[in-house]
Amino acid sequence: MSDQITIHDVAKMAGVSIATVSRFLNGQLNRMSKKTADRIAKIIQETNYVSNASARQLVTRNSGIVAVVAADIDDYFSTEFFKGASSVLEQHHLNAVLFDSNSRLNREKQNLKFINQQTFDGMILQPLTDKSQFVKELVRRPIKTVILDRDLHDDSWDSVQTNNFQAAREASLYFYKNSFTKIIVISEPVAGISTRQERLKGIQTVYPNVQLIEIDNDRPFLKKNYEKVSNLLKKNQVKGEKTLFFFLKERLLLNFFSFFLQEGILRNKDLSITAFSDTQIVKGLLPDFKMIKQDPFLLGATAAEIIANQISDKSATSQGEKFIVPAHFG
Amino acid sequence: MSDQITIHDVAKMAGVSIATVSRFLNGQLNRMSKKTADRIAKIIQETNYVSNASARQLVTRNSGIVAVVAADIDDYFSTEFFKGASSVLEQHHLNAVLFDSNSRLNREKQNLKFINQQTFDGMILQPLTDKSQFVKELVRRPIKTVILDRDLHDDSWDSVQTNNFQAAREASLYFYKNSFTKIIVISEPVAGISTRQERLKGIQTVYPNVQLIEIDNDRPFLKKNYEKVSNLLKKNQVKGEKTLFFFLKERLLLNFFSFFLQEGILRNKDLSITAFSDTQIVKGLLPDFKMIKQDPFLLGATAAEIIANQISDKSATSQGEKFIVPAHFG
Repeated sequence: MSDQITIHDVAKMAGVSIATVSRFLNGQLNRMSKKTADRIAKIIQETNYVSNASARQLVTRNSGIVAVVAADIDDYFSTEFFKGASSVLEQHHLNAVLFDSNSRLNREKQNLKFINQQTFDGMILQPLTDKSQFVKELVRRPIKTVILDRDLHDDSWDSVQTNNFQAAREASLYFYKNSFTKIIVISEPVAGISTRQERLKGIQTVYPNVQLIEIDNDRPFLKKNYEKVSNLLKKNQVKGEKTLFFFLKERLLLNFFSFFLQEGILRNKDLSITAFSDTQIVKGLLPDFKMIKQDPFLLGATAAEIIANQISDKSATSQGEKFIVPAHFG
Repeated sequence: MSDQITIHDVAKMAGVSIATVSRFLNGQLNRMSKKTADRIAKIIQETNYVSNASARQLVTRNSGIVAVVAADIDDYFSTEFFKGASSVLEQHHLNAVLFDSNSRLNREKQNLKFINQQTFDGMILQPLTDKSQFVKELVRRPIKTVILDRDLHDDSWDSVQTNNFQAAREASLYFYKNSFTKIIVISEPVAGISTRQERLKGIQTVYPNVQLIEIDNDRPFLKKNYEKVSNLLKKNQVKGEKTLFFFLKERLLLNFFSFFLQEGILRNKDLSITAFSDTQIVKGLLPDFKMIKQDPFLLGATAAEIIANQISDKSATSQGEKFIVPAHFG
């Protein structure tokens, strides 16, 4: 069979109108007999006909698809903001597809290159890179873009973020007022990642002398990390100072949970724990501890509203506006 | 500007060759001056030119994209099998995009309808439905398809699954031999979901009289569930029987964890816990308990190998083969 099979050919071979084939392709099977549907299906199968979805895209420049690029879908934050974006886009008759950068800059690059080659109407990007130039060199088409979660400090795009600085500061103030004089902050490497930097800065407005433990998530979790924490803790306890553990990411707290359980840390009134925590898991494990809860669903939904508006109103251009979705402490 | 802008027009307006525009579109910027790249970028922006990726698809019928449809990306199982699939497809120069059915049959339907309208080369589907007819009515094109995780009992597609029956049976035997005479199975609703049915059947070969508690995940988690468990447990304890808790899904165990902690269940030698558990979280929380660990990454990678072979070898057709990736108990 030739590659040039068209919808006309399919209609002719099936002995039906083009409109009927079109209805078939759009799944409107209630508007034809089962016999007709089966005949069309058979011919499409035999001729290996591919519909004109691609052709339509060329004409309208409008695929109806928004690419959502997540930093790492192993994080509940990422899957949840996708769910928020997806539900809003659905209301606007747009489809969301998800790309995973798998915490690898090279994978993010491949994703952006691929998106550049396709006809997406919009993109919601949770970047790994902190360099806007990196994105601009890879995505050279006029794809409507919103940056989510992290700050690229670039006016070309609107962005949606949690109030990382304020939320970290608010939580720190609460514990400081409750006589926690020492703080141990546990984070993935802070350099270059705006989210972590903002959180740390917020904490430092209250606790200038933060004890920071950075854990590289790419490597297997090491027992050595427990020792670091143990040692810091012992020094603080000798001085009789109340110590707060502040995890900048929920998964790190989960890594430490069984250690805390074994060491009896959960029942020691001179110790407390808080974290940026998005799932119900931590709240279930530690019902008596106050956590900072982001709203990734709302972050994604907000980004999707912005994209949907930009897509429907072609004259709308990004003003580099920053939208803040507050986290809640409690 | 007309909608009919072509790559020829862009090249002419930029005063460069078509090959140069093509290189630009493919991100090969090292092969032109920055000035040239900027000029092309400006013209593409002004004319709103959309490349011929879509046109190319029409000619080759080969988008290079595999659609991966997950039942719910809130489950680690789903994101992890996507990562496995994605890494294998990358090696075959194919791109994976992820769709989330969000545990809703209607969303799955929308995803399949959408995929039917696009030019995907292949699809890996973790279905919510248990009816193959449902899928066939929505996807009417010859898209290479592999079914993952769940069984649709249909020879049209190859499928990749965990050995749910065997793994559940093996774990049950272990506990039975260790004098656990009673078992409480905690699961989402079992009816219609092959994975859960297989697991339950495997358990029932060892424990014909299973005490089954079904929890509807769509509703908020109820304290009532704790009472059910408490009551069953008390009856067993009166009779002096050792009881095993068997969770068919990890998330359910996490819901019960703080309850177990409070009730002192974790230190009672007459009680034990096992679960189908995919993440490191449970192993971290309950290091001394034996779990059944699936390998979602390998499941996804296996499905991707099958799809990649079918795509590269056009004559390859599905034999309705069932591929089993064993789970490990320990």
